[in-house]
Amino acid sequence: MDYTLGEIAQRIGARLVGEAGTRISGVTSLESSRANAIGFLTHPRYRKLLIATRAAAVILREEELPYCPVAALVCDNPYAAYARATALFAPAPVEGPPIHPTAVIDATARLAQGVRVAAHAVVEAGVELGAGVAIGSGCVVGEGVRIGAGSRLYPNVTVYHGCEIGRNVIIHSGAVIGADGFGFANEAGRWIKIHQLGRVVIGDEVEIGANTTIDRGAIEDTVIGHNVIIDNQVQVAHNVRIGDHTAIAGCVGIAGSAVIGSHCALGGGAGILGHLELGDGVTVTAMSLVTNSIPHSGVYSAGTPLEPKAQWQKNYVRFKQLDEMAHRLRTLEKEFKQLTKEG
Amino acid sequence: MDYTLGEIAQRIGARLVGEAGTRISGVTSLESSRANAIGFLTHPRYRKLLIATRAAAVILREEELPYCPVAALVCDNPYAAYARATALFAPAPVEGPPIHPTAVIDATARLAQGVRVAAHAVVEAGVELGAGVAIGSGCVVGEGVRIGAGSRLYPNVTVYHGCEIGRNVIIHSGAVIGADGFGFANEAGRWIKIHQLGRVVIGDEVEIGANTTIDRGAIEDTVIGHNVIIDNQVQVAHNVRIGDHTAIAGCVGIAGSAVIGSHCALGGGAGILGHLELGDGVTVTAMSLVTNSIPHSGVYSAGTPLEPKAQWQKNYVRFKQLDEMAHRLRTLEKEFKQLTKEG
Amino acid sequence: MDYTLGEIAQRIGARLVGEAGTRISGVTSLESSRANAIGFLTHPRYRKLLIATRAAAVILREEELPYCPVAALVCDNPYAAYARATALFAPAPVEGPPIHPTAVIDATARLAQGVRVAAHAVVEAGVELGAGVAIGSGCVVGEGVRIGAGSRLYPNVTVYHGCEIGRNVIIHSGAVIGADGFGFANEAGRWIKIHQLGRVVIGDEVEIGANTTIDRGAIEDTVIGHNVIIDNQVQVAHNVRIGDHTAIAGCVGIAGSAVIGSHCALGGGAGILGHLELGDGVTVTAMSLVTNSIPHSGVYSAGTPLEPKAQWQKNYVRFKQLDEMAHRLRTLEKEFKQLTKEG
Repeated sequence: MDYTLGEIAQRIGARLVGEAGTRISGVTSLESSRANAIGFLTHPRYRKLLIATRAAAVILREEELPYCPVAALVCDNPYAAYARATALFAPAPVEGPPIHPTAVIDATARLAQGVRVAAHAVVEAGVELGAGVAIGSGCVVGEGVRIGAGSRLYPNVTVYHGCEIGRNVIIHSGAVIGADGFGFANEAGRWIKIHQLGRVVIGDEVEIGANTTIDRGAIEDTVIGHNVIIDNQVQVAHNVRIGDHTAIAGCVGIAGSAVIGSHCALGGGAGILGHLELGDGVTVTAMSLVTNSIPHSGVYSAGTPLEPKAQWQKNYVRFKQLDEMAHRLRTLEKEFKQLTKEG
Repeated sequence: MDYTLGEIAQRIGARLVGEAGTRISGVTSLESSRANAIGFLTHPRYRKLLIATRAAAVILREEELPYCPVAALVCDNPYAAYARATALFAPAPVEGPPIHPTAVIDATARLAQGVRVAAHAVVEAGVELGAGVAIGSGCVVGEGVRIGAGSRLYPNVTVYHGCEIGRNVIIHSGAVIGADGFGFANEAGRWIKIHQLGRVVIGDEVEIGANTTIDRGAIEDTVIGHNVIIDNQVQVAHNVRIGDHTAIAGCVGIAGSAVIGSHCALGGGAGILGHLELGDGVTVTAMSLVTNSIPHSGVYSAGTPLEPKAQWQKNYVRFKQLDEMAHRLRTLEKEFKQLTKEG
Repeated sequence: MDYTLGEIAQRIGARLVGEAGTRISGVTSLESSRANAIGFLTHPRYRKLLIATRAAAVILREEELPYCPVAALVCDNPYAAYARATALFAPAPVEGPPIHPTAVIDATARLAQGVRVAAHAVVEAGVELGAGVAIGSGCVVGEGVRIGAGSRLYPNVTVYHGCEIGRNVIIHSGAVIGADGFGFANEAGRWIKIHQLGRVVIGDEVEIGANTTIDRGAIEDTVIGHNVIIDNQVQVAHNVRIGDHTAIAGCVGIAGSAVIGSHCALGGGAGILGHLELGDGVTVTAMSLVTNSIPHSGVYSAGTPLEPKAQWQKNYVRFKQLDEMAHRLRTLEKEFKQLTKEG
């Protein structure tokens, strides 16, 4: 796969300053010496790397042009342009028969044009796959599932019965969509299963990471909005609703019926308790637990600093005395005030 | 699937107040306007929703009957009765041949009556599957595994050799039962594998969530009691023992050889260090780390509150001074006491 | 499987004190009464168990020999010798045809001598499998993947295209190697995918736990060194580099481009933010979040102690006043000093 700089400029929406005919075969970082590759500059603090770069061309903003020793692809948002450039160099799907002979596809499933189903995949009764959908090897697509045009399931994804997945969705290996929510009633100490009768409904342009799990709703559906991006090993419980363009980093856990707004960002390992609401534009930093609703946008954090263990232990044990310390401090303040008044 | 109210009353053990012949086709929340569906009321605080409900009938306690504008299903534990009602409306397993022609079943495996094995599943040598066991597509059931009557493995579950699973157990997709525990000896800085020779033994009426992992024991077995319920993405290390009726929420991690009592509840993302013991009835709240054994029942927590990041940072850095602050406070108290004595 | 004590002594590199002909059929703990099994003693604090043991023989250090009531296998590192002994009793791989007839293997894949591919596994174009490699049922090995001699993939592992795996690597079920890193550019609130063009490169003698995920690099590769051991449900993001002999416990999350040294140990549920560097020999305790680089070896911790919930809540709310308390304490100290000066 290679392209001319002229083609790339056109494809990523940048103005080319340099030879349109130069052939480019990949992307690179500014520091690397990979030949025939284009780099990108997103921040003036890396200008030194730009000045010394051996990339064939660099995607950058107008104001960095004077510092660029090689060809330049000038645009307003170099990172977005770089993202578009990576698409040019992503490997094409593996060749082979569109429907592998070992795939098991129910006679009632409806496959639109250009659908590919790889080896040992299973497509159950009543499934509808939109144009160009690619189902990876070993995937299991349950009864009545609908998947929109252009979506791709990598190998060994499981989608339970009845779920709906939008267009141009990417789901990575090991992800499980639509398993039962964790619902049980307790009767005299014994757990009785509440069968989960809702579905998972996923919007368009969503990406779901490897081994992420999204549970089906208890009665109503679990809903993932459009252009939501979810990293690996994230757990989304039943009846959660996630707004458009929200980003969720790895290992996040979202408990049942939580509602997350649009344009939110949840840092790695963060936790959201059940039945809470996060407004639009809320950012929660890594490994913070959200225990109350957050109506207003902003950045929110919890947690304690990392320290050498010996020092940490001294502070750690004092945490248990914090309330007592607060009372003692208050007492001392009062007594001191009393004393100075008397004096 | 629909039922008369009379049938439902009988199936869930409730007293019907209303027309026995009314046909019901699903369950609903009290707020929803879904037709021909039954709702449920578990707490007086939702009485307003009851008064306004458009459900066809409501499962409730005797004392709520006066507020119910529609048919009522009266019982002592409405949530448990609701759980039983959901079972009536859960979709039946997909039709098809009991043993799919693409399933690979070793000649020495013994399958009791009514066993179903779906497409591309693998059942290895010496496996025993009890009556009515359902093995989902793509599951791999290792050599010598025994699974009790009525249990169900959803697609793409892996059970390693020799493990034992009780009756009426549900295991969701992507779960891995019996992988090697994390055991290594260090020799001059190099890790040497300790082969894991124990098994996983799981009791009856257990549910295991999607992508949960339960490791086999090193020498003895890892043991999960009866009616234990485990959510998604939980990690149970080797030689852990979990007592009956314990509930474990998503993303919990339990380190090696920990012993968890009966009727415990571990909140989402909680962690239990290795070799600890938790008595019966211990509840640990979300994302708390348990670093010592807990002999007595009760609710236990750790962690710091979520705050807007700018405020949090001020408090966060002070955590490192906590021990020093405690000393300074003590010093000031002493000096003040000394001063007032002198005075 | 059984061996004589003499054979075992030779295989594990220990000096036998006792009958060389005694037949041994397994390993055991010192407390257990399993017949014909060997136990091990790693620390003098368990000497009481040694004195009372019913094991057939015990692996121990020279200085414990006087306390051993049965045959002894004397060596310098009993735990490492025990690890070697467990290998003798680990079950042999399931018998059957080396290449199962249901495996789908591309004609261009190259399989060295002794390769086994189990039922329903998929080996794509251009794959190279070294001598004795074992691919479990349902595994999917993507285009161009190379796996070194002696490595084993348990069932339902997915390896994306182009990744490289060393020799004698063990990968447990559900692990996903080489899924896309979590890379997106934001353009006017909308996420644009950055295609991930790097690979995952894994060294020799590595073990990777069940449902662990290791993402491919964005441009360069994600690199796991030699003899790294990784437990279950660990998330390793794109472009992470992990040094040789490092141990990573369950549920750890490592964010993008973090560099972890050699001989490090990350406790269960720990988190490492992106772009940080941890030097060699750094230990991070369970559920601690690392927010800055750690150049020097040592043990590092964060977090607050577990308490009964009622007590914890009192201290928890005070955390928000910590900075204010520090200021008030400082003020009081100053005023007190002022007062005593005046006095």
